[in-house]
Amino acid sequence: MAATQTANAIRFLSMDMVQQANSGHPGAPMGMADMADVLWREFLQHNPQNPQFFNRDRFVLSNGHASALLYSVLHLSGYDLSLDDLKNFRQLHSKTAGHPEYGYAAGVETTTGPLGQGIANAVGMALAEKILASEFNQDGLDIVNHHTYVFLGDGCLMEGVSHEAASLAGTLGLGKLIVLYDDNNISIDGKVDGWFTENIPARFESYGWHVVANVDGHNPDAIRAAIQSAKNETAKPSIICCKTLIGKGAANKEGSHKTHGAPLGADEIAATRQHLNWDFAPFEIPQNVYDQWNAHEKGEKLENEWNALFAQYAAKFPEKAAEFTRRMNGTLPENFETHVQAALNEICQKAEKIATRKASQNSIEILAQVLPELVGGSADLTPSNLTDWSNSVSIKPRQGGNYVHYGVREFGMAAIMNGMALHGGVKPFGATFLMFSEYARNALRMAALMKINPIFVFTHDSIGLGEDGPTHQPVEQTATLRLIPNMAVWRPCDTAESLVAWAQAVQAQDHPSCLIFSRQNLPFIQRDEPTLANIQRGGYIISGSQNAQAVIIATGSEVELALNAQKALAEQGIAVNVVSMPSTNVFDKQDLAYKQSVLPENLPKIAVEAGVTDGWYKYVGLNGKVVGLDRFGESAPAELLFKEFGFTVENVVETVKSVL
Amino acid sequence: MAATQTANAIRFLSMDMVQQANSGHPGAPMGMADMADVLWREFLQHNPQNPQFFNRDRFVLSNGHASALLYSVLHLSGYDLSLDDLKNFRQLHSKTAGHPEYGYAAGVETTTGPLGQGIANAVGMALAEKILASEFNQDGLDIVNHHTYVFLGDGCLMEGVSHEAASLAGTLGLGKLIVLYDDNNISIDGKVDGWFTENIPARFESYGWHVVANVDGHNPDAIRAAIQSAKNETAKPSIICCKTLIGKGAANKEGSHKTHGAPLGADEIAATRQHLNWDFAPFEIPQNVYDQWNAHEKGEKLENEWNALFAQYAAKFPEKAAEFTRRMNGTLPENFETHVQAALNEICQKAEKIATRKASQNSIEILAQVLPELVGGSADLTPSNLTDWSNSVSIKPRQGGNYVHYGVREFGMAAIMNGMALHGGVKPFGATFLMFSEYARNALRMAALMKINPIFVFTHDSIGLGEDGPTHQPVEQTATLRLIPNMAVWRPCDTAESLVAWAQAVQAQDHPSCLIFSRQNLPFIQRDEPTLANIQRGGYIISGSQNAQAVIIATGSEVELALNAQKALAEQGIAVNVVSMPSTNVFDKQDLAYKQSVLPENLPKIAVEAGVTDGWYKYVGLNGKVVGLDRFGESAPAELLFKEFGFTVENVVETVKSVL
Repeated sequence: MAATQTANAIRFLSMDMVQQANSGHPGAPMGMADMADVLWREFLQHNPQNPQFFNRDRFVLSNGHASALLYSVLHLSGYDLSLDDLKNFRQLHSKTAGHPEYGYAAGVETTTGPLGQGIANAVGMALAEKILASEFNQDGLDIVNHHTYVFLGDGCLMEGVSHEAASLAGTLGLGKLIVLYDDNNISIDGKVDGWFTENIPARFESYGWHVVANVDGHNPDAIRAAIQSAKNETAKPSIICCKTLIGKGAANKEGSHKTHGAPLGADEIAATRQHLNWDFAPFEIPQNVYDQWNAHEKGEKLENEWNALFAQYAAKFPEKAAEFTRRMNGTLPENFETHVQAALNEICQKAEKIATRKASQNSIEILAQVLPELVGGSADLTPSNLTDWSNSVSIKPRQGGNYVHYGVREFGMAAIMNGMALHGGVKPFGATFLMFSEYARNALRMAALMKINPIFVFTHDSIGLGEDGPTHQPVEQTATLRLIPNMAVWRPCDTAESLVAWAQAVQAQDHPSCLIFSRQNLPFIQRDEPTLANIQRGGYIISGSQNAQAVIIATGSEVELALNAQKALAEQGIAVNVVSMPSTNVFDKQDLAYKQSVLPENLPKIAVEAGVTDGWYKYVGLNGKVVGLDRFGESAPAELLFKEFGFTVENVVETVKSVL
Repeated sequence: MAATQTANAIRFLSMDMVQQANSGHPGAPMGMADMADVLWREFLQHNPQNPQFFNRDRFVLSNGHASALLYSVLHLSGYDLSLDDLKNFRQLHSKTAGHPEYGYAAGVETTTGPLGQGIANAVGMALAEKILASEFNQDGLDIVNHHTYVFLGDGCLMEGVSHEAASLAGTLGLGKLIVLYDDNNISIDGKVDGWFTENIPARFESYGWHVVANVDGHNPDAIRAAIQSAKNETAKPSIICCKTLIGKGAANKEGSHKTHGAPLGADEIAATRQHLNWDFAPFEIPQNVYDQWNAHEKGEKLENEWNALFAQYAAKFPEKAAEFTRRMNGTLPENFETHVQAALNEICQKAEKIATRKASQNSIEILAQVLPELVGGSADLTPSNLTDWSNSVSIKPRQGGNYVHYGVREFGMAAIMNGMALHGGVKPFGATFLMFSEYARNALRMAALMKINPIFVFTHDSIGLGEDGPTHQPVEQTATLRLIPNMAVWRPCDTAESLVAWAQAVQAQDHPSCLIFSRQNLPFIQRDEPTLANIQRGGYIISGSQNAQAVIIATGSEVELALNAQKALAEQGIAVNVVSMPSTNVFDKQDLAYKQSVLPENLPKIAVEAGVTDGWYKYVGLNGKVVGLDRFGESAPAELLFKEFGFTVENVVETVKSVL
């Protein structure tokens, strides 16, 4: 079957973009052109004139190296992406980055490239749709009602995160999730037979998915029928396995991995123009092709219909409509700050000595009272992370709720949370042990890169977790999380700092947060009001002294130790300030005068934290010292470990004295 | 069917250990006791008197929280693990850590606890066995011939890494890998029906495994038949799905997730003693049970037989036997150092300007000439990582070789490499882009924790990779890898440093290495002989000046920039030293005098690296400066990016002048 001109338009734009940039991946866009042609022109519900139209279908290109395909279809559909933008593919500050970057080109729903995460993002989007539909839809007024479509390739399916996300999607019965698998049998090392022979249809059936197997990915009729069948199945997610040829249409290189990651070359492109009877210059698209692609009219109609539906809904359910609008805008309720402030005052009254993971749970309880958009969860550690609350409702197959039992799937959880945050209308948080932030690491980074705001909760934050031993005891994890650009990392020392950290994370608009909590009990520390107000600056003098001779900086469970050392030093006539620094990232953003008031240049400084020391020299300098832990922990009761590793008043006192 | 006394011995030891420690996980050991009883007493080929006996079956407890089971069977079998050791479960410096720690109790083949990695380690062990068998076995003299057994639970199977490892094991047809799945339908959040409903037999069949489904995990006959069936299938790995009850045997809590992570309590244990007719005190095992468990005689016989076989082998193939012995001892060939030195001299003669990833490939070529134990590989980026060499042979289903096409499975790759390193006889290295070290992160840490020495190769090390953009451009990755305790991270600047880094990694006995290479070409830098010899110290003056007024520290691609800045400063009459610091970890281990000679206290210092800056203040102090990158990259040609982000001679010059 001859490929359509509408599909070939994608092929030529992709070839031309890669050729012009002299960099990129033409093979996948050419192979998936027919799939995209059918999906985008015939099925996708969207409005290029308003890429933020809430009820649009979401489209995720999980194999993000096929970015040229996405840019092509956005351009052809009539999004604000010009031919000049396409010509600037992969150039500095262009909208058309090498991989699709969320926030750059309109219509890019998520940043993809790191394989496997796109499908997990899509699971999050479909889950958010399900949650919102269950919460807001009323009496046939289905204001939340869209599909989430995914393209992915062999690479995504090899990645473990695709297993995690797909398995959970199957269990939850996310019937509006439709995946099109670009089964071209090629990855970078060549034909996949030597390393990837699993039976994908059988695998996805084992997850409880609806599988449409053996679809000719270059036959529009077959693709159309498969998508229709997937839409008809509403109780299970669907995967459509499309047999394709990488570089489909290329005159000589069709089917070869040589089309994957390099320009085809001028000769091959010229031959392909002839081969496909495409009589147009590079970046030239005939008007009749544009006409077949343009989705302005369809999009406007779609949005008008939805607006009418929503007007009906608002008339019947004005409060729900107002709440829906607030949620879609991502704004906090008006009473948010006073609510938090009142709760903070109460916490200071109570002065409880509890684990900060428990303080975290109390904070969740407080926030959930005013934030119905919170969607919590844990990677199968709910009773340890303490992430459920009195009104949390576990999401079940084909039922809504606000709490996700992610199973033991940390990476999947984080990438699904990213998808929920991108979808909008919900505010996801999810938890595991701090150690297993490592399993999820790249999804945390992707959240920071995309400037979205999910909240990652990590408990069991140090050797203080005790007997589970070094495999579970974080040593370098807090330090490495702090190094992710645009990430706010908080390690609170008590109930007050815990609530402030939570409130800051909830208020964050353009960055994600990591909230790190202890397993063990930590004392409440009394502060006056200005000191309390300074918590949100990330670092502050929690206990000052007249004529301080040195500064002890500490975080989390080590703040108590620093304060005890301060007392012991005072008994020896040595006055020191103690600085609590729950968030180095936030402290770094304060103005210089404030920072110098907390860490005066002329005072020697020591830092105390039960973790690796390197990062602290930025604050203490070469003349300061760090009481930390540059080796792995041990399995033993926590109190013995703190002693074993030098987290004692004596050691901190001696260390301070050594720098005076 | 009543449980056997031999199985109940595991149950009571496990209950007692957890109770005594007041911490731990009794449920899984009790649930898997019957599986362990049959496997260990009837099938496992091992010698408790020589835990290092090469041809032993490997046993991996992938659900490592069931450590009490492993300690119980090691003790019962007659390993050097006393009742006192069991009584010290989870105590400081005891052999019986909270999770099984490699190097602590004899017989622990790998450290487990972080779920999913144990099965991947086991895939590596089975793969190493296959590689060595293919290389060494001759004419019916099968000196390499053992099985690898794995216990795992629901948690391991939810983790993505289990998917990656199992899929590859299926493709490679690792017929001597036998997994027993503890299917108890319980995880920490409760009954798994709400988050884990996939069909495990169907899933593993989709991977090409031999599946023994629906085995009663408390029926020894059924377990025995299943293991025998698994042993009979030699072309595919096997999974035996054992239906079990968590906490099996507990008087009241059997089947409840309450047995998972907390002591049963004295009352429940007393009731269970009665329930199971176990009339013995805590930690008391009747002699007849010991007699049934003890494997000394069997083990000695087994090892004697193998020794006789090996003697035959050595008589017929003396050279192969000598090589086999060297490989098992993990020693390098005698000519190693002279071979490397000669190659290094040649490299200095050639003075090539090439990408360090290409220099890495040249180094592999050099090392492979004398190290047949090298087993390379890549997570589907061979043509980009440049990790194959002229004599590399791709491992295929049911065929040996020395190069693994891991597929797009970074975490699986790293954990499989760990398993190969633990097995011994092979020296694994494996590669991906530096960014995707994040997918594998916790396996890198596990290698460091276990003090084993796989070599992780990471190419495309900075914004210097160009157009692929911020999803692929490492910014914080090198810095975060440096923070893993006991990890040596190398970022070489040219062909000479690349070979030295490789040689150091290959020589390392007790730590893993990360070797980080550029995509783009980097010039060769001429050094005199003492300077060349200093590379292995991790940091050294690569270009000194008379009366230096400052020091510029740089790594990798930024060394060239530092040297150009040195020249420009010299023209302005400012003399500076340039320090190349390919490995901060190795430099940190040098003696103080050497370190001060490289970084004199009295000179201001600036560091230049295309990555996050925090870590460098440890070297430059508060009076120094860092030219780095504390934000994400962009998609554009590399040279534009270096300029965009301030990696210019002008900026370095100005920065140096600002600290003088």
